[in-house]
Amino acid sequence: MTQATRILLASRPSGTPTLDNFRTETVELPDAAEGEVTLKVLYLSLDPYMRGRMSDAKSYAEPVPVGGLMEGETVAEVLKSRHPGFAPGDLVRGRTGWCSHSVINGDKLRLIDTHGAPISTALGVLGMPGFTAWSGLRFIGKPKAGETVAVAAASGPVGSMVGQLAKLAGARAVGIAGGPEKCAFVKDELNFDAALDHRSAGLASDLQAECPDGIDVYFENVGGHVWDAVLPLLNLYGRVPVCGLVAHYNGEGAADTDRLPPTMSTILRRSLLVRGFIQTEFAEHFDEFLAEIGPRVASGEIRYREDVVDGLLNAPEAFIGMLTGKNFGKLVVKVA
Amino acid sequence: MTQATRILLASRPSGTPTLDNFRTETVELPDAAEGEVTLKVLYLSLDPYMRGRMSDAKSYAEPVPVGGLMEGETVAEVLKSRHPGFAPGDLVRGRTGWCSHSVINGDKLRLIDTHGAPISTALGVLGMPGFTAWSGLRFIGKPKAGETVAVAAASGPVGSMVGQLAKLAGARAVGIAGGPEKCAFVKDELNFDAALDHRSAGLASDLQAECPDGIDVYFENVGGHVWDAVLPLLNLYGRVPVCGLVAHYNGEGAADTDRLPPTMSTILRRSLLVRGFIQTEFAEHFDEFLAEIGPRVASGEIRYREDVVDGLLNAPEAFIGMLTGKNFGKLVVKVA
Repeated sequence: MTQATRILLASRPSGTPTLDNFRTETVELPDAAEGEVTLKVLYLSLDPYMRGRMSDAKSYAEPVPVGGLMEGETVAEVLKSRHPGFAPGDLVRGRTGWCSHSVINGDKLRLIDTHGAPISTALGVLGMPGFTAWSGLRFIGKPKAGETVAVAAASGPVGSMVGQLAKLAGARAVGIAGGPEKCAFVKDELNFDAALDHRSAGLASDLQAECPDGIDVYFENVGGHVWDAVLPLLNLYGRVPVCGLVAHYNGEGAADTDRLPPTMSTILRRSLLVRGFIQTEFAEHFDEFLAEIGPRVASGEIRYREDVVDGLLNAPEAFIGMLTGKNFGKLVVKVA
Repeated sequence: MTQATRILLASRPSGTPTLDNFRTETVELPDAAEGEVTLKVLYLSLDPYMRGRMSDAKSYAEPVPVGGLMEGETVAEVLKSRHPGFAPGDLVRGRTGWCSHSVINGDKLRLIDTHGAPISTALGVLGMPGFTAWSGLRFIGKPKAGETVAVAAASGPVGSMVGQLAKLAGARAVGIAGGPEKCAFVKDELNFDAALDHRSAGLASDLQAECPDGIDVYFENVGGHVWDAVLPLLNLYGRVPVCGLVAHYNGEGAADTDRLPPTMSTILRRSLLVRGFIQTEFAEHFDEFLAEIGPRVASGEIRYREDVVDGLLNAPEAFIGMLTGKNFGKLVVKVA
C-alpha cells in the first residue's frame, strides 16, 4: 500500500483564489491494476490555466469538481509497473494532479527525455509551456527575419521562449514584464532587444518607442491593458496567437468602455490574424519540438529560469502568488 | 472637349451622411494624353466602404479630401484611347470615381468579361463584392461539407455570394438580413437553409435554433449586435473572415459594457481564427474567380439581385439609403 498526500479543490474562488479554496487529504492508494503504474511524484507544475479549471464557467476543458483533486502535470518516478511501456525507476511526465503519489493508467504517461537538462525542465522549457511558445510561433505567429515580436509575461516560461525563438528567427524581440528585476532578466539574461515594465504608466508610449517599425507578431498570453498598448502598433498582416489571458482569469480585463469595436476595426484595417490555440492541437509535433529545442536548452543556448517551491503543501500559496505575478520564472513544486 | 459631371465630397459627415456632405460640379475634361483614355461611365458602384473614405479617421486607405471627387468603381465605355490596350467601344472597369466622364491612365483599367451576364455584374456578383466573398471563403473561411456558414447582410452582394458558395461547398448556409422581404429572398431565391431578421428581438435564440450544430464559419461584414448573437455559437476551430463592419461605419457598434474580454476568451477557448482582409490582398486570383464563377452567374446557377438607381445625381441619396439598409441587392447607379 502506498500513502498519497493530495490537494483538493475545497470551494470555487471568486476573483483571486485564497488558501480556503484548497484542502489537503492523505489516502491509501490501491495497488496498480493491469495497465497501471504506481508513481512517486518528483515535481508538480503550477500554471495559470489551472485558475480556469477552478471555475465552472464554460471553458475548453471540464472544471475540477468541488472536492476533486486539483489538476496538474508532474514529473514522476515509476515505483511499480503493470504496463509494458514502463519499469521501476523510469522518469515520466503525466497528469497526476497535485499529489505525492499516484496510481494511473500508463497509456497517458510519457517517458521524459530532456537531452541532459534537469528533469524539471520537462514541465517548463521542454514541456507544455515551451511547446506552447514553439507551436504558437511555428504554426500561427510565423516570425520572419527583420520583423518585431512582442510578448508579455516575458520572464515566464512561455514568454521567455517566445522571445528567444523570435531572436533565433532573426526578429526583434520586445518583452513586457512586471517590475525592474524581471525586465533586467529579460533584457540581460534572455537577450531580448527590449524589456518594458507593464506597471509603468507610460507603457503605450514606451512600447511605441521600442517598436519603431510596429509589431508584426504579438503573442497574447495576458490580455488586459497590455492589449490596449499593443493594438495601435500592430502592422498590416500582423499575427496574434492567443494562448492565454492571465489578466482575465481573476476577473480583471474589462474596461469602462466597449473595446470591441476598436479591436475589430483594427483587425479589419490591418488585415490581422487573431488565432486562439491550445498546444494540444499541435501535439503530433512534440517530438519535433523536443529534437529542435532540447539540445539548445542542454547547451545553454536557450535559457530558462525556474522558481522552485519546496514541498507539496506549499503549492496553494505558490499558485496564488503566481496569479498575482509573485513568481519569477517557471513555477514548479519540488514534491519529493 | 468632353464635359463631365462629378460628385464631390463637400464636407465630412458625422454619423450617417446627409445630402449636404456632397456637391456636384460640371467641368471640361482635357484631351487624353499619351497612355490615357477618355471614358463615358455607364454604371457606378455604391459600396459601404465609401463611408470610411469620407472620414479622416485612420483606415487602410487614404480618405477623400474635402472638395475631392468621391471615390468609386465604374463600368465605362472607351470613347478615345491613347493607350495600346484599349480601343473606342471597349468596356472597362476602373476607379474613375462618381462622374459621368473621365480621362484616366489606361494602366489602371481592366477589360471586362462577364461571360454573357449583364455588364453591371462586373461591379457586383462578378466584381469586387463577389470576389470579396469568394476570396474570404477560399483563403480564410474554408467551409467544408456538413459545416454551418453564417453571414449577415445576406441579401447584399457579398452576403448573397457567401451563402451560395457555402451551399456549393456542401455546407449549411444561414443568412441574416433586414426585414421579411429580404429574408424571403435569401431563403426562397438564393436557397439559403435559413434566413433570420436581424431586427428581431429574438435574434440570438433564433440563430441558435437555426444552427443546431453551431457555426463553423461566420463571414463578418456588419459587426454590431449580430456579432453578439454569433459569438456564443462559434464552434471549436471556427473561422471568422472579417471584411466589413457596416454597423460601425456610422458610429454605431459600441455597447455599454466592454465586449472585448468575452470575445477574446471565446477566441481562446474555441481556438478561433479571426482574420481581417481586403480583397486586393488576393487580387492575383481574380481571373481564377472569374473563370469559376462567371459561367455559373451567366447560367443562373448563382443568383444575384441588383438595385439600379437611374442617374448620377441620385447617387448621394442612394448611398445614404444603403447605409441605413434601404437598398435591396447590389446598389449600382446607371449613369448613361
